[in-house]
Formats: sequence, C-alpha cells, structure tokens
Amino acid sequence: MYDNMEHFAANPGRGSHEMAVKASRTLFEGRKQLAKLFHIKNPNDIAYALNTTMALNLALKGFLHEGDHVICTAVEHNSVRRPLEYLKKTKNINISYIKTDQKGHLAIDDLVSEINGNTKLVVCSHSSNLLGSILPVSEIGELCRDRGIKLLVDAAQTAGILEIDVEKMGIDMLAFPGHKGLLGPQGTGGLYIHPDIDLDPLLHGGTGSQSEAIDQPTVRPDRYEAGTQNTVGIAGLIEGVKYIQKETVESIHKKEWQLTQRMMSGLLEIDGVTVLGPEVGQNKTGIVSFTVGNADSSEIAFILDQSFQIAVRAGYHCTPMAHEMAGTMERGAVRASVGCFTTNEEVDQFVYAIKEIVKYTN
Amino acid sequence: MYDNMEHFAANPGRGSHEMAVKASRTLFEGRKQLAKLFHIKNPNDIAYALNTTMALNLALKGFLHEGDHVICTAVEHNSVRRPLEYLKKTKNINISYIKTDQKGHLAIDDLVSEINGNTKLVVCSHSSNLLGSILPVSEIGELCRDRGIKLLVDAAQTAGILEIDVEKMGIDMLAFPGHKGLLGPQGTGGLYIHPDIDLDPLLHGGTGSQSEAIDQPTVRPDRYEAGTQNTVGIAGLIEGVKYIQKETVESIHKKEWQLTQRMMSGLLEIDGVTVLGPEVGQNKTGIVSFTVGNADSSEIAFILDQSFQIAVRAGYHCTPMAHEMAGTMERGAVRASVGCFTTNEEVDQFVYAIKEIVKYTN
Repeated sequence: MYDNMEHFAANPGRGSHEMAVKASRTLFEGRKQLAKLFHIKNPNDIAYALNTTMALNLALKGFLHEGDHVICTAVEHNSVRRPLEYLKKTKNINISYIKTDQKGHLAIDDLVSEINGNTKLVVCSHSSNLLGSILPVSEIGELCRDRGIKLLVDAAQTAGILEIDVEKMGIDMLAFPGHKGLLGPQGTGGLYIHPDIDLDPLLHGGTGSQSEAIDQPTVRPDRYEAGTQNTVGIAGLIEGVKYIQKETVESIHKKEWQLTQRMMSGLLEIDGVTVLGPEVGQNKTGIVSFTVGNADSSEIAFILDQSFQIAVRAGYHCTPMAHEMAGTMERGAVRASVGCFTTNEEVDQFVYAIKEIVKYTN
Repeated sequence: MYDNMEHFAANPGRGSHEMAVKASRTLFEGRKQLAKLFHIKNPNDIAYALNTTMALNLALKGFLHEGDHVICTAVEHNSVRRPLEYLKKTKNINISYIKTDQKGHLAIDDLVSEINGNTKLVVCSHSSNLLGSILPVSEIGELCRDRGIKLLVDAAQTAGILEIDVEKMGIDMLAFPGHKGLLGPQGTGGLYIHPDIDLDPLLHGGTGSQSEAIDQPTVRPDRYEAGTQNTVGIAGLIEGVKYIQKETVESIHKKEWQLTQRMMSGLLEIDGVTVLGPEVGQNKTGIVSFTVGNADSSEIAFILDQSFQIAVRAGYHCTPMAHEMAGTMERGAVRASVGCFTTNEEVDQFVYAIKEIVKYTN
C-alpha cells in the first residue's frame, strides 16, 4: 500500500503513462490472485466493490426482475435481507426465508420444498455471522444447477477461511469482503459474476473505455466498475490473498477451528454461559457467540474492553432472523472471533476474563 | 493511514470496544473536516462513497422519480450523463443538455429557458474536466432556489481547489472525490445531502444501527452508508483536508492558476498547438487541454511518458459532449494538470518537452 501511495497513486485505466499502467496492473493482479483463490476461470469476471454490501446490492438489484421469486436462508445478514425487502416493495419480488435449526444448520429439503416455477435465485450465506454454522453450499449449488436456478453466495464470513471453488460448488455469483478473512484493508471487496449472467450495473459512469457511448460498456470488468477504484486498498488486499495462499485456506481453517474448540470448551465450564451455534466437535468458522445468564451482552463487552483489553462485538449482529433462530432476540449475544494470528494463550486469557466477569457480576 | 492500519483497523459503528470507537471517531473527524471546508452545518449530512461516481449515482437515482425533468450542462462527465440516460430509459425522465461555448462557458439564460413546471433538478459540474472552465454555480443556485428546483453540483474538479460554500451557493447536493484536490487516497469521496432532501438509498444493508428493522434506518449518515466504510482511506483524507485548510483553498487556487498561465503562454508559442478552454487571463482550474496540429493525442502522451517522464491523459476524457463543444471529437486532446505541489520548473520542462516533440514529429 505504501509503495502504491508513494510511487504510482495514479488512476488505473485512464491515462496510459507508466504510473497509470502500474495502477492498472495492480487491479489486474488482485483479480488474478482472487480468481486463483476462488477457482474462477476469468479474472475479469470479478468486479471490485467498496464492501460486501455493495457487491450484494449489485448482485440482487442487478439480477432480480419484476415478480421474480427468490429463496434465502433465515440466517442472512441485513446486507441480503434489506436489499431483498426493498426489491419486494419496488419490484414486487417474492421472498421465501428458509429457517435453520437453533444451531444455524439448514435442512436442504426445507429449501427444495419452496422452489416454484418462478424461482430465479437462491441466496445463501456460506456461514452465519452470528452462529458460525456452515451452510451446505455445494448441495444447494447442485440442486440449483439441476433446476436452472442461479445461486448467489455471501462469503463475508468465509472468504480466505473455507475452501471456495465456484465451479465445483456451482456458485454463479460470489460476494466477498477484502478486509475480513482475506486480510486486506477496509474499503475493498468484490463480486464474482458467472459469464452467463448479465447484471444491470449498480453504478453508471466513466470507465475510461468507450467514452463516447451513453450506455455503460458491456466489456468486463468495466461494466460493473464505474469511477476510480480503490487501488491502494487492492494493493493491500493482494498481499493478504498471497499470504493466505502461502499458508493455505485449509490450514487456516484448521487452526481457527482448533482455537474455537478450545474457547468453547473453556466457556462451557462456566456457570450460566450458553454457547450458540454448532456444538463442540462440529465444523464451524472462527466465531463463538454466547450469552451469560440474563446479563446484558453490551455490559460484558464493555468490561472485556475496559478491564481486559479484549475486543468483541455485542448486541445484535445485523442479522435479526438468526437471533430468532438462536433464541436471542431479547438480549442479543456476545460474539468473539478468532483469526489466523490468534494464539492459544489469547483464547485462555479470554476464557479467564469471562470467568472473572461472571464471578464478580453474579 | 498507517496508524489506523496498525492500531485501530476495527469496524466503525459495530463493536463498542476502544478500537471500534477510534475507527468511528475517524469517520466523524473526516465528516467534521469536510463540513468545515464546504460550510456544511451538520457533518452527518455527508455520506461517504467509494468515489464521486458512486456519490452522483446516489444523488441522481435516489432523487429523480418517474417523469421528472432534469437540466444539466453539456460538459458533464459520464458519471452524470450515464446515470441520467439510464434513468431516461428506466424512469422515463426528461433531460435537457445545455450547451456551452467552445471555451466551456455557460450562458445562464440558455439554462433558464429550459426550465419548465416539471423541472426538479439542475446538475452542474463546478468545472469542466476537459476544459477547466468554471461554471456559474452561485448564479444557478440562486435561480434554482427562487424556483424551488434542487441543485446538484459535481465538484470532482474543484473540491479543495475552488471555494465551495453550500449555503451561500445554494447547493442542495455536492458530490466530491477524496483522491483529487482533497489530496486523499483513492477509494474515498462523498455526497453532501441537504437535510430537507430524502434520497432513496443506493445501497441497502447493515449499518450497525436498528439491526432488527427491515428498512434502511432513517438516521444520517447510516441511511446512506450500508456496509463497512473505508476507514483507512478516510484517515488519509483527513490529513489531506487539514493540509488544504492550513494552506487555504484560495492560495492553492491562485498558485495553480499561475502555473496554468505559465503553461498556456509557453504552449501558445509553439506552432500548431491549440489550447482548449478559457483564454490566458481568464479564471480556470489547474487543467490545460490542448491539441497539436493533427497529431494523435495518445502518441504525444506516449512520448511525454517514455522520453520525458511526464504523465498526462490523452484521448477522450469521459465527457463526449465537452469534446463536441471544443471541436475535438475526432482526435481527442492531451490534458496536462498542475497541482498544489507542481513547480514552475516542472511547467517549463513540460513546455520544453512539447516543443521537442513538435520539432521531431513534424
């Protein structure tokens, strides 16, 4: 990022001078690395976005038409639910929300039974951002493919953490953040769009190409990337993706899973603590959400921060229906996350902190 | 930016821990600095965006309704023209494009005569990105105010370079980039929205507030800022805006103007060079576009880069109608830009380079 800011902070795709070319190459290098990671054939089928929310808005608003039927899970984030509810009001689309069990697991049959002749799209989070449960994307991909229904996957919780192969898994569109599991900076993310899908662009404007046309160019990625891109952010994202490829997604997931198991086992020994999501031993991502008796989750988060310098998120997590599934609509939940740089010692300190908090607040 | 990445790269507005609070404060500090610069009363009336294009898409798509009439100038960038043409197709809006003279100057009367009872919005670039001419925003603001028409200004070329006072100038919406005159990094920019205007959000999704509501919150800036913001970019933008306030917009403009005068005078001494836009002595921004006889603008840009390490933009500039005004639809133009760090010596080297190129290509 520093190198970009210092030596080639020019506008990619506009000028043709050396700095602009270097900036353009940075955007392409990012696409190449991301394509490799997600097994995408053509890097130009990836469009950059400010964040996953923007990528999901492009996918949903660009794909769904008047009266279409869409199926999504009840553990989707508001970045899926709110655009869908907006399209329900403005384009009269129909939405089926498929419930999960209390742990955030989805039964495929519940989804299949909602499919009708008008179903155009299934939207599925790869993992619940509240519960850490992993959804059966491959199975959903297969059944969508058999029925000619497109599949949009929200990889906000899994990009860089769980193996994603858009071809094998039958993913037609993949929305991902740059600043979470991919270890890039905020302000980055993107959407993979299968070459067979033509979306209505979310942004219209200059692309540096076909300047004279009044329509957005059809060539990718220009079609979906109007205006100046976040080159400095992409420069950082490239380094994150490279690191992940060196370490391998598999080993990162394994490490994070072991850390969550240690954390959950520790938490479950504490009186009054209820851990949400998959049980010890089951597969999940690096999230551990929990409640402590009737305690306010914000208060626990506050003490963790002030007295133990531990950062967690409390309250609701932009996913109201997942709280319904988990039965935590009343008080919200504390969510702790481990990452690939978290250590066993940090997990132990965290469990110790919760023990202390329970001791002194009871 | 480095400090943010190293010490508080947390999600603003989500967690309540110290790093998240620091990230939130960074976003607010940016809003405060921008509000001060543009004389905006309430910093929360500024919404961040990926770039000016996104800000303009929010303004245009969020404001215009079925059948509305909008007036804009013929020197608007594709980031205005393409969203408008899209709305013409999808919402049946009517667009009047007001021509300028060859130098890029607009006659107010030409605009007034297009106003009808259905005119809801005037969109005006503060300065042409091809010609550097300055448009009479204050006068347009006054006549819009008198008639109850809203004014959207595209400050892509002027934020940080020309004085902008949204109150005095009657600007209802102001779209601005972070990475040009405000000296911030790419991936930043925003839109000021007068408190009386309620836009349909461009993005729907999580805001960290009112998680349980299926609609986008009405509170600002959350309403227009779904998803994770580019905190690291805003951290950089703050430093840029502070620098501008220290130097003052007035002195930056004066310096840039003097540099353009020096450049134009030098260029005009060269046989075959035609300088576009305002004449020597007239007010303008730091852009000097020109043609050299019948030479291809890309070739000149290529030689400037390869032999003189001078970066310019050639060809078309995402503003086809401005090329029509200037009579350069055939060959495009070379555009050189000065900035607040450009020196007289650099301008002289540039003029020398053009002289050499003309000598050896004739």
